[in-house]
Amino acid sequence: MDEIDIDIVANPDLESPVLIEGLPGVGHVGKLVAEHLLEEKESELVRRVYSEYLPPQVSVGDDGTAALVCVELHALTLDGQDVLVLTGDYQAQDNVGHYRLTNAFLDIAEEFGVERVFALGGVPTGELIEEYAVLGAAATTEFVDELEGAGVEFREDEPAGGIVGTSGLLLGLGGRRGFEATCLMGETSGYLVDPKSAQAVLEILQKVLDFEVDFSSLEERAEEMEEVVNKIEEMESQSQQASLPSDDDLRYIG
Amino acid sequence: MDEIDIDIVANPDLESPVLIEGLPGVGHVGKLVAEHLLEEKESELVRRVYSEYLPPQVSVGDDGTAALVCVELHALTLDGQDVLVLTGDYQAQDNVGHYRLTNAFLDIAEEFGVERVFALGGVPTGELIEEYAVLGAAATTEFVDELEGAGVEFREDEPAGGIVGTSGLLLGLGGRRGFEATCLMGETSGYLVDPKSAQAVLEILQKVLDFEVDFSSLEERAEEMEEVVNKIEEMESQSQQASLPSDDDLRYIG
Amino acid sequence: MDEIDIDIVANPDLESPVLIEGLPGVGHVGKLVAEHLLEEKESELVRRVYSEYLPPQVSVGDDGTAALVCVELHALTLDGQDVLVLTGDYQAQDNVGHYRLTNAFLDIAEEFGVERVFALGGVPTGELIEEYAVLGAAATTEFVDELEGAGVEFREDEPAGGIVGTSGLLLGLGGRRGFEATCLMGETSGYLVDPKSAQAVLEILQKVLDFEVDFSSLEERAEEMEEVVNKIEEMESQSQQASLPSDDDLRYIG
Amino acid sequence: MDEIDIDIVANPDLESPVLIEGLPGVGHVGKLVAEHLLEEKESELVRRVYSEYLPPQVSVGDDGTAALVCVELHALTLDGQDVLVLTGDYQAQDNVGHYRLTNAFLDIAEEFGVERVFALGGVPTGELIEEYAVLGAAATTEFVDELEGAGVEFREDEPAGGIVGTSGLLLGLGGRRGFEATCLMGETSGYLVDPKSAQAVLEILQKVLDFEVDFSSLEERAEEMEEVVNKIEEMESQSQQASLPSDDDLRYIG
Repeated sequence: MDEIDIDIVANPDLESPVLIEGLPGVGHVGKLVAEHLLEEKESELVRRVYSEYLPPQVSVGDDGTAALVCVELHALTLDGQDVLVLTGDYQAQDNVGHYRLTNAFLDIAEEFGVERVFALGGVPTGELIEEYAVLGAAATTEFVDELEGAGVEFREDEPAGGIVGTSGLLLGLGGRRGFEATCLMGETSGYLVDPKSAQAVLEILQKVLDFEVDFSSLEERAEEMEEVVNKIEEMESQSQQASLPSDDDLRYIG
Repeated sequence: MDEIDIDIVANPDLESPVLIEGLPGVGHVGKLVAEHLLEEKESELVRRVYSEYLPPQVSVGDDGTAALVCVELHALTLDGQDVLVLTGDYQAQDNVGHYRLTNAFLDIAEEFGVERVFALGGVPTGELIEEYAVLGAAATTEFVDELEGAGVEFREDEPAGGIVGTSGLLLGLGGRRGFEATCLMGETSGYLVDPKSAQAVLEILQKVLDFEVDFSSLEERAEEMEEVVNKIEEMESQSQQASLPSDDDLRYIG
Repeated sequence: MDEIDIDIVANPDLESPVLIEGLPGVGHVGKLVAEHLLEEKESELVRRVYSEYLPPQVSVGDDGTAALVCVELHALTLDGQDVLVLTGDYQAQDNVGHYRLTNAFLDIAEEFGVERVFALGGVPTGELIEEYAVLGAAATTEFVDELEGAGVEFREDEPAGGIVGTSGLLLGLGGRRGFEATCLMGETSGYLVDPKSAQAVLEILQKVLDFEVDFSSLEERAEEMEEVVNKIEEMESQSQQASLPSDDDLRYIG
Repeated sequence: MDEIDIDIVANPDLESPVLIEGLPGVGHVGKLVAEHLLEEKESELVRRVYSEYLPPQVSVGDDGTAALVCVELHALTLDGQDVLVLTGDYQAQDNVGHYRLTNAFLDIAEEFGVERVFALGGVPTGELIEEYAVLGAAATTEFVDELEGAGVEFREDEPAGGIVGTSGLLLGLGGRRGFEATCLMGETSGYLVDPKSAQAVLEILQKVLDFEVDFSSLEERAEEMEEVVNKIEEMESQSQQASLPSDDDLRYIG
């Protein structure tokens, strides 16, 4: 096996496809979006990317068969818009790996004629969220303007530490290579898998790419998570009443 | 020295050999099985694999001579079945090393005409075990079926985190390269070297490969471990009586 | 992208330029100096150095556009003295990266005809500072003598652990390659961004390179930091009165 | 700079030289021995080994000049026995670096016609020591026998974890390359720099290589350390009387 080893599974002709990336990250927001698209739409696996920068690991399927960890690209169509969806269970495990794998992903995107890249992720707020904003960053001011029109928020100094990992590099390396790239980040507490944040990101994508997708399975999952959140809040409020003097003091608890 | 440096010690003609891997890991289950086979059967050292991915270390023998850390492959016969046994004191120390060393092991297996690979290990349960099940994963559904017939259990979502390290990659990379590969994992508490779990794995191997091996030395070692376990349990129950209210509460202690 | 990827933005003719390096480090002293020079003087961006040894990250500007993390070199003139200023938001993330990036920086310096290298940094004292000394180390005794004449202090066994990172290597690798190199380190508590320490280093640079620069913006920032320090000291003295027996004991608190 | 960069400072003709390695490690035993030989005998610097596997760092001399971290080889003569002494302030910082640097050291040894390699170090006992034994391991049984005759102890299962780092690899890689190699390890508590352990190792070297060296400076340093040890013991005995029931219990304190 080479450092990066790509299985060419299919080579469909795609018309002006966009790349949508959703790997695991904060709140699993990006991955939830990518998986939701693959569940709701018919798709075709086109590439498997294996690499020694991924964990030395197999995942085991329900039938007992094992598969080497990889990143997959599927082709699908969203109401006429061809899309390559990039997802998987792991990101690269070190800095060099992030750079090399992201470059490999962009090479594949180039092969298929991709011009626009949507890297998806979550941005942690550290607290439970009522209104799910979607923050953005993009390679060009033109793309910033277009996305702002679709409801994406661009805030000064946010996200504070910049954007790291595959999403950051798809934007950074992609921009340098001439892709029209953006990273869309759903606000999320950062503590839990967050289907509501994923839905907020999907709504932006719908506007920008002009398609519609059914949200019901995502909403169900959101309701399940909400029950978890409610239980946690209940437990927290009980323990706070027991050990803490007043609500005011709680403001300073990280 | 190259990145990976292989001493060719012997090149015996083997007839349809299988590869059995037992490197250190959870409960030392795989290593105990490999060592037991090497103790009970006559064997011939065929390869020593040195690598800068292994620790920078020598082990010192009883006669005061030192040997550079390596992984060894021995050839032996189990009631007519030729076998390559892969074992050693260490696995690779990082991700890239795991990929490259496992590929080197598969290259050697290929040279000897190996078609079937048995990677052995333990799966931690977190509690002391009465009935030692052997969990499995395999590269193909055919091999899953055959192993299930021999008593291997294939459970949905187990092992939860997939299989990591050399065993995982022998299965994952081996499967990709066309080997009929499996990973057999004896259940074990995960806290102690576990000869009973090793015996459970050996019993499966006996059925699948149709051979018999004497278990007495492994049973002795199991009895020694059992005494250790009993002492630990005794100490635990004393400390529990002292500090904990009831047995019911103990169920929730990890 | 290669391991190190250099954008050639401009190639101005520079006359006997010196290299001044100010990357993030102890007290951000070096970076404050480099940034102050870029704020006060007109400058021209000449190189962007991208590398997989830098974090896999983009920074996001106020207009929502993202830029891949890099190290930049700007050309400017300090009262007739041509200067290359090297700065950025990150240093290399591992040992090998430090060596390779520093060599790349020296290659660029060589291209522009640089003979003298000033690596800037801070040296932590562990306590708040009244008089800001600037410690030095240099590649040759001649340079040591010259810098001593300008007020740089050369103290036996300081800094105790040697000088690490890009600054250390610009001096060590630079010296080996024949550059007249020095590292100038402003004393700083090590706890806070320290504009006063940066001013002390700038004052040395003014003498050695014979230029003048306005300090007012740096002094403002120093006053802001002083308010922060005062608040911290106030809080400390209150908590000390509450829990500690006497001022004498505090001397031994790290 | 290459991965490993060797300055050829001098190329004296040496007659059947041996290599003595003393890099920093447990109790600094090996480094103390190497430094003592360099202090007591006239020596000539023959090689400086620079490498990106060493820390990215310069050390600063008393005259304010800085030198890139390196490993040095000096030639000297011990009563007619030519010797290459290998020492420095750092070992390699990772596994691969240990392998590659040690191979580079052995290449240099080969150039000078070295046949015997003495890697020196300390073996931690975890307690203060009365009688300083020197443990050994060697590449061949012949060398084991010779060293045993000189008072080196070869004990089953010691050192328990094998020998790691440069010393281990000089023995392991050296043995594979045909050097007559040994690692001599002075017993030491492991908590402090240990000149007494260094003296014990030197006494063995004197017997094996048939030379004499003045110990007085090492003895002085040992006395200084002894005072430190006495103070620590005093403090310990006081704190034990205060908080612990009896001396018997102390046996179990690690």
